[in-house]
Amino acid sequence: MKRVLINFKMKVAYLGPEKTFTEQAARRIFPEGKLEPRNHIRRVILAVESGEVGAGVVPLENYYGGKVVNTLSAFFRYCQKAGITQERAFEVVHCIGALKNHHKIMQVLSKDQALEQCDDYLASTYPDAVAMARASTAEAAQYISSSQLLDAAAIAPREALVKNGLEVLAEDICPNNKTRFVVLGREQTQPTGDDKTFIIFHPPVDRPGVLHACLSFPSLFGINLEDLVPRPDGKGGYYFCTEMDGHIQDTPVRRTVDNIRFYLDKDNKHPDAVKVLGSYRNTHWKK
Amino acid sequence: MKRVLINFKMKVAYLGPEKTFTEQAARRIFPEGKLEPRNHIRRVILAVESGEVGAGVVPLENYYGGKVVNTLSAFFRYCQKAGITQERAFEVVHCIGALKNHHKIMQVLSKDQALEQCDDYLASTYPDAVAMARASTAEAAQYISSSQLLDAAAIAPREALVKNGLEVLAEDICPNNKTRFVVLGREQTQPTGDDKTFIIFHPPVDRPGVLHACLSFPSLFGINLEDLVPRPDGKGGYYFCTEMDGHIQDTPVRRTVDNIRFYLDKDNKHPDAVKVLGSYRNTHWKK
Repeated sequence: MKRVLINFKMKVAYLGPEKTFTEQAARRIFPEGKLEPRNHIRRVILAVESGEVGAGVVPLENYYGGKVVNTLSAFFRYCQKAGITQERAFEVVHCIGALKNHHKIMQVLSKDQALEQCDDYLASTYPDAVAMARASTAEAAQYISSSQLLDAAAIAPREALVKNGLEVLAEDICPNNKTRFVVLGREQTQPTGDDKTFIIFHPPVDRPGVLHACLSFPSLFGINLEDLVPRPDGKGGYYFCTEMDGHIQDTPVRRTVDNIRFYLDKDNKHPDAVKVLGSYRNTHWKK
Repeated sequence: MKRVLINFKMKVAYLGPEKTFTEQAARRIFPEGKLEPRNHIRRVILAVESGEVGAGVVPLENYYGGKVVNTLSAFFRYCQKAGITQERAFEVVHCIGALKNHHKIMQVLSKDQALEQCDDYLASTYPDAVAMARASTAEAAQYISSSQLLDAAAIAPREALVKNGLEVLAEDICPNNKTRFVVLGREQTQPTGDDKTFIIFHPPVDRPGVLHACLSFPSLFGINLEDLVPRPDGKGGYYFCTEMDGHIQDTPVRRTVDNIRFYLDKDNKHPDAVKVLGSYRNTHWKK
């Protein structure tokens, strides 16, 4: 059994820029790591692939917003040796703020994902306001302040609102919100007894019933799937991302993956029909 | 048989603001309609629900980007009487432009979705540039111009680049791109012989294998599903959006829906376990 020694001083690439929630997550996962921002998920993956860094940290899913599709798409295209070795979820506390002398709020500015996560709150509290996407939550707060927009509010962390001189109108407007991050690495993890395995399957031919057939194996072998997200492959078909309970070294999981591979590629002509992106401890992050 | 009379002068709500691609789509679908922008997909749906407008137009899916999750979420929460009556897809031609005296491009600005759709092009042509989300494609072009950003490029329609004095660096950088829009209405459509039916199912209890079981019925009855997208319900579970081949008046489709409903809600306690959002002519938009 190969033991993995974690070097706490190792280089860790994360999806930047600096001062974002992903940097905070990377810092909490690797308190002594040498953190390096990358400007695209692709570049985090490629840094792990090449061995330039020991690990990478990217966001995978939000409690309200669902899977981060850019991350799935980068996994599908760029992960070869790099895989998921760890999952960690952190609370996200969204607050809303405006200039102290604000008028009626007619627009709410934030990062697209934050607007989506807070949609219920916005629909009930500011039903007439337009949601406007900005580059980041902090930039939304800063923009309202620098442009002195009296009819606008920003959704951002409390500190970003206060730092830009905005009055906090409401705190934690999207309760129990969490974002799950994953650590990418090149090492194989050992089973802990409570793991998940991330796989991506890509049917070479889009036959009717292909999805049902692929799901038959986990169902027959009693393996629960956490989620199954189809994404367009850019050629008119789909690839599917899913996490199943268990470690790839567990026989039912290995057998499930082998059967899906055989079903999709009986003649062994499509090595990428099934990609195993790694097994890692299940943190039951939604609980 | 009830005949549906289409009033071409009727009021049509669409997801605004004005001058966007959705307005263009609404205009092409309803050349003589009285178009009214709404600032949220929810408000388009509610205008159709209340009878304030005769129809609504919202984006549902992009060839490269996949389903518009905000639309799915609004369907799940707000559609009661309103359903889909028509689908129409239109080509989207993304161009990239910068100031004439631009330096090396280090940032690319656009609407989040456009950045995602053009990810392949950006990865190969501007691998070092950061993708920065802006409120819209037009605003991205306008911002580069007004701020005289020499290291930035915008992804936008050609006219928006030219109008803001930017030089077009490349045209149609995301070939064969299309966005599919749907028309919302309160009327029932009649079968045409080549239809699709949109359903949303929401398992009241998250049992292992529930997805596989629900997919068994279309598979057994020979019904193809175009896609199946899980979305978080905000309570730790998921709802699933799918389009199946056939009209709800076709026996195999009706039977499939009935069986899924029975499987998910044997005791008839969860009327919202399955929602049929309408049947409409299949335009085979990806072909």
